[in-house]
Amino acid sequence: MSSGEFKPLDEKFLVEYIKATPSLYQVLGNNLHDLQIKEVGDGNLNFVFIVQTSSGSLVIKQALPYIRCIGESWPMTKERAYFEASALEEQGRLCPNHVPEVYHFDRSMSLIGMRYLEPPHIILRKGLIAGIEYPFLAEHISEFMAKTLFSTSLLSLTTTEHKSAVAKYCGNVEMCRLTEQVVFSDPYKVSQYNHWTSPYLDKDADAVREDNFLKLEVAELKSKFCERAQALIHGDLHTGSVMVTHDSTQVIDPEFAFYGPMGFDIGAFLANLILAYFSQDGHADDRNDRKTYKEWILKTTADTWSLFDKKFTALWDGHKNRSGDAYLPEIYNNAELQRIIKHKFMQELLHDSLGFGAAKMIRRIVGVAHVEDFESINDAARRADCERLALNFAKMLLKERRRFQTITEVVLAIQKSHS
Amino acid sequence: MSSGEFKPLDEKFLVEYIKATPSLYQVLGNNLHDLQIKEVGDGNLNFVFIVQTSSGSLVIKQALPYIRCIGESWPMTKERAYFEASALEEQGRLCPNHVPEVYHFDRSMSLIGMRYLEPPHIILRKGLIAGIEYPFLAEHISEFMAKTLFSTSLLSLTTTEHKSAVAKYCGNVEMCRLTEQVVFSDPYKVSQYNHWTSPYLDKDADAVREDNFLKLEVAELKSKFCERAQALIHGDLHTGSVMVTHDSTQVIDPEFAFYGPMGFDIGAFLANLILAYFSQDGHADDRNDRKTYKEWILKTTADTWSLFDKKFTALWDGHKNRSGDAYLPEIYNNAELQRIIKHKFMQELLHDSLGFGAAKMIRRIVGVAHVEDFESINDAARRADCERLALNFAKMLLKERRRFQTITEVVLAIQKSHS
Ligand SMILES: Nc1ncnc2c1ncn2[C@@H]1O[C@H](COP(=O)(O)OP(=O)(O)O)[C@@H](O)[C@H]1O
Ligand SMILES: Nc1ncnc2c1ncn2[C@@H]1O[C@H](COP(=O)(O)OP(=O)(O)O)[C@@H](O)[C@H]1O
Ligand SMILES: [Mg+2]
Ligand SMILES: [Mg+2]
Ligand SMILES: [Mg+2]
Ligand SMILES: [Mg+2]
Ligand SMILES: [Mg+2]
Repeated sequence: MSSGEFKPLDEKFLVEYIKATPSLYQVLGNNLHDLQIKEVGDGNLNFVFIVQTSSGSLVIKQALPYIRCIGESWPMTKERAYFEASALEEQGRLCPNHVPEVYHFDRSMSLIGMRYLEPPHIILRKGLIAGIEYPFLAEHISEFMAKTLFSTSLLSLTTTEHKSAVAKYCGNVEMCRLTEQVVFSDPYKVSQYNHWTSPYLDKDADAVREDNFLKLEVAELKSKFCERAQALIHGDLHTGSVMVTHDSTQVIDPEFAFYGPMGFDIGAFLANLILAYFSQDGHADDRNDRKTYKEWILKTTADTWSLFDKKFTALWDGHKNRSGDAYLPEIYNNAELQRIIKHKFMQELLHDSLGFGAAKMIRRIVGVAHVEDFESINDAARRADCERLALNFAKMLLKERRRFQTITEVVLAIQKSHS
Repeated sequence: MSSGEFKPLDEKFLVEYIKATPSLYQVLGNNLHDLQIKEVGDGNLNFVFIVQTSSGSLVIKQALPYIRCIGESWPMTKERAYFEASALEEQGRLCPNHVPEVYHFDRSMSLIGMRYLEPPHIILRKGLIAGIEYPFLAEHISEFMAKTLFSTSLLSLTTTEHKSAVAKYCGNVEMCRLTEQVVFSDPYKVSQYNHWTSPYLDKDADAVREDNFLKLEVAELKSKFCERAQALIHGDLHTGSVMVTHDSTQVIDPEFAFYGPMGFDIGAFLANLILAYFSQDGHADDRNDRKTYKEWILKTTADTWSLFDKKFTALWDGHKNRSGDAYLPEIYNNAELQRIIKHKFMQELLHDSLGFGAAKMIRRIVGVAHVEDFESINDAARRADCERLALNFAKMLLKERRRFQTITEVVLAIQKSHS
């Protein structure tokens, strides 16, 4: 089915649509008689329908030409669905274990049909709030990041492949602008969309807007975000874009995908773990002081970077003789040089990740879109205490990121900031 | 005339073509009876015809699907003419005083009709070899660079404008690949195209290929060249792409144009002045020891950067309230912050320029395409002495560029390296 025209889905139309679309109908066993449909879009932007029959299931995601949680007053191109589908397919090709399969994409309908991540899959952020440990999380997410970032960078691609992909994703500019606004701009100026736990954090929010050194560093990160086409990044890799069970980790929702700095993805994930960490005291109660869980979060933070480093470097080593255009084997294939190059690359990437991560933490506390980790702490004073610690840590990290040489030093600094 | 098919020009066909093309015919006064045509392409890549009648003149440049100076064995897309015409038009719009007007562009013919830069215009490089002083050169070229680089960067553009332009120029990827090869790769490995003043520089060429620290720095610059879409750069801004008279300065030949790092253009121009400087001892004779001229070159080198800094900063100041997306006025409009941001930006740009410039010097001595400044020194031993000084200075500059804080320090280092 593809009339070539856009139409927002309702349940009735969705049924018609599926019937007329073999690639979807087939997943449901070509039979809709015990069909169940549920709209579950708890995300900020789009509509998500779970579609199930006794013989199969799938998810339908549709982008509307505005931002769902704000409404038609904040228009947003529905073409984002095209970039989301493209990125899902590319990331799925590179890392099939951790990306849901795409069954169908309809550009004029801005509609993606994909695998339903069935229960007990839940959004990772909710698991972190509930205090659930995921023993394979660091292993899986680092694999996703290493494979997708390495393989779409000039470490693996030729310049020809790279520039053609860069050009394509330049089309996702409206989503880049949204990120620029909510991550790099709004928190540093007065904006109608900003909010924070008031009155507790009023002074803290003021201070963010008046910190010249902080703003200088944010400008540097923003330039990198806008100018550096290092790899195809997910663009929104927080813990709300990851669905998990004990042994499955699935990355969804790459509608912000474009060619940008790798550290933006890595930083997003690390930052959201660190936010989860700082929120734990707000969730502690008599039955569970969350101490052990906090340690698990920190260990997972450290492991995510360390395993990423290991996997990324291993991919690089494996490419020694069939490399992308960045480091030609004829010039760079000597052990000493390889060692220095990789060390330099990973140091810079760590610093980028810490910088972007810190910026993402800040915006979740004084910007437009907050995280459930904090929002679900009902007592405002208690929430503000957690948020202030996180904010202060993030400000320090953004300004001083270059003095951290290992993730262990970062973890130690988190612990120190909190004791 | 636009049959929609490509055909290499000869004089007969050129006459037909002009007759059938009003925008060209008109420049010649709609009359070809005393027509004169001369092919003058002394460049490396393309064919250039000067077309004159008693009532007008123009230049026709055509790209063929290979590199002229090498032949059909090195194919090269003729689509480069499209990017050259686009860049000429864009740069002409931004800086009409220093860019020849484009009268006509035919994409299928890869043909550009433009203003004939009539005598006494000569290629700047030839003027530098002849020892001619150009009192307005620094003023003019710095204006060209400041206007074109500022206005195509995020200091002036919105992200939407920027990404759309980036995407367009991603299409000029074959020219980017050529630069990658001849500037960032070939000089650092054994390549059939490399040559140098042998046997004098054999050891020096070896040393370039075996200098790990040098190669590490070159890799960093190459990444920046490939990944950082900072502004629409000319891409080939050496002294052979500038035509001059005593009081006119015209920039031609932007067929390598794409969104890249600003320092690549600035560095190219500075580097070619510095190469001219190091070649002067090879042109000194009893009548002219070239001492005064060397001082003029150094002064022009310093003035070019200083005036660029001044003009670029002035454009930035002038944009305070209607800026591009990089530094939003609401966040960055305070005097102290403006000062720090500009200082940081210009320091990084100086370091980029020195790095790219140094890489361009090196490739002109041990790579495929040399410069007439040195090639016209007939005595090979004497030429090699000049080249070695230049090469050693360039290697130092590439490795130690970050310790230079002002252009004056660079000029002092040139003088020192040479005494
Ligand atoms: N493939 C899927 N399987 C199961 N649930 C999904 C799937 N995709 C999305 N969801 C649910 O829908 C929610 C919103 O989806 P998401 O892609 O994040 O949309 P948005 O772009 O609006 O944030 C998710 O948080 C998750 O609960
Ligand atoms: N507009 C012009 N007016 C006068 N001479 C020109 C003009 N354009 C090119 N030429 C001459 O033709 C030569 C080659 O032109 P150029 O654009 O540099 O070609 P290439 O890309 O092959 O290097 C220049 O060095 C100059 O001598
Ligand atoms: Mg989401
Ligand atoms: Mg979201
Ligand atoms: Mg989303
Ligand atoms: Mg030329
Ligand atoms: Mg040329």
